[in-house]
Amino acid sequence: MDFVIIGGDAAGMSAASRAKRNNPDLRVTVMEKTLDVSYSACGMPYNIADPARDISDLVVRSAAVFKEKQGINLLTGHLAEKIDTKNQIVSGTTREQEKFAFSYDELLIATGAAAIKPDLSGFDLPGVMVLKNLEEGRLIKDYLKIRSVKKVVIIGMGYIALEMCEALRGLNIAVDMVKPRPTFLPWMVKDLSAVVKAEIESKGVTLYSGHPIKKIEKTDTAGLMVVCEDLTLNGEMVLVAVGVTPNSMIAEKAGLDLGIERAISVDKGLQTSDKHIFAAGDCADAYHVVTGEKTYIPLALRANRAGWAVADNIGGKDVKLSGIAGTAVFKVFDLEVARTGLNYEEAIKSGFDAEEVVIRSRSRAHAHPGSTPIWVQMVGDKTTGRLLGSQMVGKEGVAHRINAPAVALHAQMTVEQFSQSDLAYAPPFSPVWDPMLTAANQLLKKL
Amino acid sequence: MDFVIIGGDAAGMSAASRAKRNNPDLRVTVMEKTLDVSYSACGMPYNIADPARDISDLVVRSAAVFKEKQGINLLTGHLAEKIDTKNQIVSGTTREQEKFAFSYDELLIATGAAAIKPDLSGFDLPGVMVLKNLEEGRLIKDYLKIRSVKKVVIIGMGYIALEMCEALRGLNIAVDMVKPRPTFLPWMVKDLSAVVKAEIESKGVTLYSGHPIKKIEKTDTAGLMVVCEDLTLNGEMVLVAVGVTPNSMIAEKAGLDLGIERAISVDKGLQTSDKHIFAAGDCADAYHVVTGEKTYIPLALRANRAGWAVADNIGGKDVKLSGIAGTAVFKVFDLEVARTGLNYEEAIKSGFDAEEVVIRSRSRAHAHPGSTPIWVQMVGDKTTGRLLGSQMVGKEGVAHRINAPAVALHAQMTVEQFSQSDLAYAPPFSPVWDPMLTAANQLLKKL
Repeated sequence: MDFVIIGGDAAGMSAASRAKRNNPDLRVTVMEKTLDVSYSACGMPYNIADPARDISDLVVRSAAVFKEKQGINLLTGHLAEKIDTKNQIVSGTTREQEKFAFSYDELLIATGAAAIKPDLSGFDLPGVMVLKNLEEGRLIKDYLKIRSVKKVVIIGMGYIALEMCEALRGLNIAVDMVKPRPTFLPWMVKDLSAVVKAEIESKGVTLYSGHPIKKIEKTDTAGLMVVCEDLTLNGEMVLVAVGVTPNSMIAEKAGLDLGIERAISVDKGLQTSDKHIFAAGDCADAYHVVTGEKTYIPLALRANRAGWAVADNIGGKDVKLSGIAGTAVFKVFDLEVARTGLNYEEAIKSGFDAEEVVIRSRSRAHAHPGSTPIWVQMVGDKTTGRLLGSQMVGKEGVAHRINAPAVALHAQMTVEQFSQSDLAYAPPFSPVWDPMLTAANQLLKKL
Repeated sequence: MDFVIIGGDAAGMSAASRAKRNNPDLRVTVMEKTLDVSYSACGMPYNIADPARDISDLVVRSAAVFKEKQGINLLTGHLAEKIDTKNQIVSGTTREQEKFAFSYDELLIATGAAAIKPDLSGFDLPGVMVLKNLEEGRLIKDYLKIRSVKKVVIIGMGYIALEMCEALRGLNIAVDMVKPRPTFLPWMVKDLSAVVKAEIESKGVTLYSGHPIKKIEKTDTAGLMVVCEDLTLNGEMVLVAVGVTPNSMIAEKAGLDLGIERAISVDKGLQTSDKHIFAAGDCADAYHVVTGEKTYIPLALRANRAGWAVADNIGGKDVKLSGIAGTAVFKVFDLEVARTGLNYEEAIKSGFDAEEVVIRSRSRAHAHPGSTPIWVQMVGDKTTGRLLGSQMVGKEGVAHRINAPAVALHAQMTVEQFSQSDLAYAPPFSPVWDPMLTAANQLLKKL
């Protein structure tokens, strides 16, 4: 049987490895358009921050290992262009402009997502960068070094933008951040986003929110200029980090159903609208465990997990993924910022009778040295009492704390049940009432 | 109505405050045998570690605040000695040897637990210390200072013993630890306890396990000598930290039912076998959420929570506590050590068809700087697939990670469901597959 995979990163290579492990006789072919496979994309900002490290440190497993040790027919520099669903053939073109075609019994589309570049003048100039795949990371790292960049303008203020902001400031590069929408971290409750904003500004970064970008221009001094209505910002490099869009064109052209945000629509078994074609990773949608509805939140863990599920399913198992809670965490300077589930606005939009609390507590026990503030937001549903989501910000103990409400969301727990959880306490790590319990106790009063 | 409380620490003062808040007209009387109320007992090792801090920093709320601001009739130095359940009267003696008696409509016994002192020769010598209440903490701190102690022998190797070991080493005091049983941290799976053992030994502490203690003697040089069959250990102070026992004598004498380990037996609403008497905190037992059976695991969060529940219940509510998971965490030198739920032996003993895995993973993502090893043990039930417990050790990210399986235990999740949780990932905090998910995935293969 031929298992063909388009895309050689998290979802694609997870599926390839596991399928081969499940059944060594399976013929597994992976076509990857770039020359890189199986790398830690999320690690790029941290790698870029350290000039002493090569960017290829981020490769988790080399192409050679996949090919020689695992017997996977891994083809880099192979751009898949067309899926003939009737005859079950994928065809495309290599970097050397050679045509290729492969028959499949089962096909996995794991094409990922691409960084969005607005269709505006100057966004194609040299020095205007995006960061989604390793090639782009390499380009940025080389550019910073070769040009001895001293100032960068970042368009966008999402996870990647903020992680890159920290990385660049660590290299002593000045950073201005600009974005069209007026609200900083619009998905976050204001009390918490204000803490994050203050932290970034304290590091000498200026945040220009509410400035729609008109164009990027070259300056006389071989620099770049981001031009807004009422503002121009200069730098030797511009990083565009305004979000990603699923690489679903090949699926759409093949007649597969697309869903939310044009992601490839898949069922809980990762099957597309064609029963021999699966999709996994950042190109595919997912069910949200809180709403039960489709969502598009492309993150690494889901990609790996979905890759495994596809491998099991083409091997005859019937794996259904329960869905995602949208759990995410990032570090920005000295802060940990995390979320899981729905925020208040999302909860209302999904039809819940939502209530929200924000509490401020401490990261350590009463009178324990080194304690820092920690903020917890929590959302619940008045009708059912269910916990719907949580957000946290603090200097320590946020990144792993968020996993407790994430698990509670999977279990469809009520706020009351969550509030009764026997959480860990020792003075160096938490107050007796963990900040999450304090938030749950406060939220209970409003439900 | 008269609400009378015996014991003025976590459970007692939580109940008093909340009862008064629920109903300002309620007459609330608290009798506390010591002169201290409402302090962070768990913070004592950390306070003792810092000579610059006064031990009374640990007092969360002073007696004056309870009395004057909250209107609670708080009586320190009042030892309750007898409960007349028929006439609903508590009587006792003050430090000034005056007799007292109070009528109650509802009574809460929150007498806590006492450190166990073996009934052996020399355990009553000056310089032989225990550490459970603030008076004992004060005594130890003063003794260390006044005597300029250079060497301590700790009998016992549980949480308190290990936290005190760290505190003393931080003061540059030499420490030997000794205990009768042969196994270090017997509740912990060997692969993990070996990591903890190595950490402690690396700090110049010698661990003598398997040495039953015969007696303690004075030495010629005004020091103390712990005498075992085959070993003597010298120090200027001996800390006895071999566990605690519930202060349940007054309840037993009143004819109340005692349960496991002689803790006062309570139902989910914290009621004892007398319907007007409640018990909460370290003197009372609890239901375990995994086994559904009674257990005795005296910890601070439960004490606070139970105090609140009693206050609500005497006010006419019907609060039932779901129970405890036995979640606990402690820090010892550079390690975080945590557990929740049952270990393998407890699971077998409780009738589960248990399987166990231990995995070693990393605290941060592939190629992320500063990553350290993290060990996760996980126990599941073959018959039902249920998650039964987890243990973790590592230098970072353990203390809060344990809360995720703790919540899963409350939700009675299967290992499979837990393995599908959408946990947080960012390179500074975790691999893509969080170590807990790796453990769950491995455990699934054995179920």
